[in-house]
Amino acid sequence: MHEELDGYISRCRDAVFLHIRAYLERRTAQLPRSMKTCVVDYPYRRGKALRPALIMLFNGAYGGTDAGAVRVAAAYQLLEDWGLGRDDILDNAVLRRGKPALHLLYGLPRAVNALDMLHDCVGDMLYCHCGLSARRYKAVHTIFSEATSVTLGGQHQDIEAREIPLERFTERAYLSIAERKTAFYTVVVPCLLGAEMAGARGQRGAIREFGRALGTAFQIIDDVLDAENDGSGRFGKAPGNDIREGKRTLLAAAALRRLGGAKKRRLAAFYALPPEKRSPKMVREIRRDMLASGAPAECRAKAAKLTAAALRVFETRLYPAMRGPARDRIRELILKLGDRSF
Amino acid sequence: MHEELDGYISRCRDAVFLHIRAYLERRTAQLPRSMKTCVVDYPYRRGKALRPALIMLFNGAYGGTDAGAVRVAAAYQLLEDWGLGRDDILDNAVLRRGKPALHLLYGLPRAVNALDMLHDCVGDMLYCHCGLSARRYKAVHTIFSEATSVTLGGQHQDIEAREIPLERFTERAYLSIAERKTAFYTVVVPCLLGAEMAGARGQRGAIREFGRALGTAFQIIDDVLDAENDGSGRFGKAPGNDIREGKRTLLAAAALRRLGGAKKRRLAAFYALPPEKRSPKMVREIRRDMLASGAPAECRAKAAKLTAAALRVFETRLYPAMRGPARDRIRELILKLGDRSF
Repeated sequence: MHEELDGYISRCRDAVFLHIRAYLERRTAQLPRSMKTCVVDYPYRRGKALRPALIMLFNGAYGGTDAGAVRVAAAYQLLEDWGLGRDDILDNAVLRRGKPALHLLYGLPRAVNALDMLHDCVGDMLYCHCGLSARRYKAVHTIFSEATSVTLGGQHQDIEAREIPLERFTERAYLSIAERKTAFYTVVVPCLLGAEMAGARGQRGAIREFGRALGTAFQIIDDVLDAENDGSGRFGKAPGNDIREGKRTLLAAAALRRLGGAKKRRLAAFYALPPEKRSPKMVREIRRDMLASGAPAECRAKAAKLTAAALRVFETRLYPAMRGPARDRIRELILKLGDRSF
Repeated sequence: MHEELDGYISRCRDAVFLHIRAYLERRTAQLPRSMKTCVVDYPYRRGKALRPALIMLFNGAYGGTDAGAVRVAAAYQLLEDWGLGRDDILDNAVLRRGKPALHLLYGLPRAVNALDMLHDCVGDMLYCHCGLSARRYKAVHTIFSEATSVTLGGQHQDIEAREIPLERFTERAYLSIAERKTAFYTVVVPCLLGAEMAGARGQRGAIREFGRALGTAFQIIDDVLDAENDGSGRFGKAPGNDIREGKRTLLAAAALRRLGGAKKRRLAAFYALPPEKRSPKMVREIRRDMLASGAPAECRAKAAKLTAAALRVFETRLYPAMRGPARDRIRELILKLGDRSF
């Protein structure tokens, strides 16, 4: 069964990539050559295609055909490729998909310029390459535009949270950011897009509830993995990036609560420093303290609860309205996402 | 007559701003409050509305009505407001429209995030707020998308040019950058949009030729004004920004050609430095040398020639196909743009 889902996602990833390449080759043909290289860099590294797979699966489970949905899935993957580039700049990330980050390869000005071009490509691809009827285009445009507002709104809250002392950063604040910044964009929107492409509009409330829970679990585990990442390369990211950048995470807040004495003071002091004052040695110490504090297990338990809640919404409200093999693949994907074995 | 044109542009500016505000208030209503402030900051400072005025004038001269064109003009002004924000970040500008640059007011992460939101607003405003028919929307979308590709392509060339020693930077390279980065976006596209909104598609070749010449003259004078700016505030920008950033301009290249001995060597050495090594004192010296070199007059003469060429295309090929008072206002605006008394 696992092989079957993996095979499905792999085929979906290939199909999405073909459309991204077809669109980008045409759109970038008139650009300076060295600019084109920079614009297509992240898209051509090819992500895992989680979000496109969710679009395709929800579309399929509601009876939609692949041909229409795959192009919208490709445009959404392009939005992700753009978003990763801007996140990497804002977070000073060094690795992405196992290779140096865009701004390190090309320098900041070229990278910013290429990413602005890529951002424009998303909307243009949706309009020019997806063959949508006027009515369908309107609905899909509206979902994309909500995706942008909500995600960037969450990003803004995330930026502001870094100015709050860690000891005053609440679980509630974390959940609000994770819902807006990750859950909406990673799960809610792909599922809404899939349903819309299949013409199924009746389950939007349940989809939002489902996606909020599953996507928040995804972000909590993502934060834990950033700390657990030993640099062995499995994640394609550099280890401890969130810690160095002082991101306010559930993991950091839980570690602060669980640690005592000198370690607690050291953690709070570290998060109060400006990023450039956080040395690699300090990051290693803080990471060790966090991992030893019991906070990762606490966070994983929280994520498991959220995944279970998502699964409950899926079983009781979404699954009954779905059909075919796609709905069983979705159940399997939920479990894989919940423990991040995806 | 001058008052009449000024009055027209002022009314056009007010009308455009009303649409920008109506759209932005709606679109930013769900954003975090402190994010909204940052997103609307540049648009609400209100520019001179040169590009919207060109759209309205070309639309009017080809017989179009104001009601349709004003919304497209507003969306194009929003593209400009976004573009200025990103330019200011890339160029480390300190002032814009007489106030501190966005990234200085809000910090870089908030500014970048808000500008990404604003970029999304441009396409969304064009689609949702402009009331275009499907056919008209397609044509206008295509022009906006060409505007982005060509302008960002020019920006990329401009970034790469800063890695070329000033003594090897040719007039040809300058003209290619100015045509893509400025002329296309500032003159060609607004005129094409105005014509399209009036349903006049027959003069696109002549419009491109006209806009290339006039827009390049505009950029040459812009470079001269950056050096001549004594900080008295007339321009709403900080003086000597281009010099500090080492922009490859016709002015810098002409000054290098005209200067001799130690001053020539000092100029070449200055442009070979990384920006952070250029002290305010050095910028003041270089600026003084440039102004004394005779290069400003040489550049103004070049700009005057280009303006005359644009005027020739206008008189012989555009004006005869136009009608009403708008065509005379365009002639007047060309002259004002040529000497930058606008």
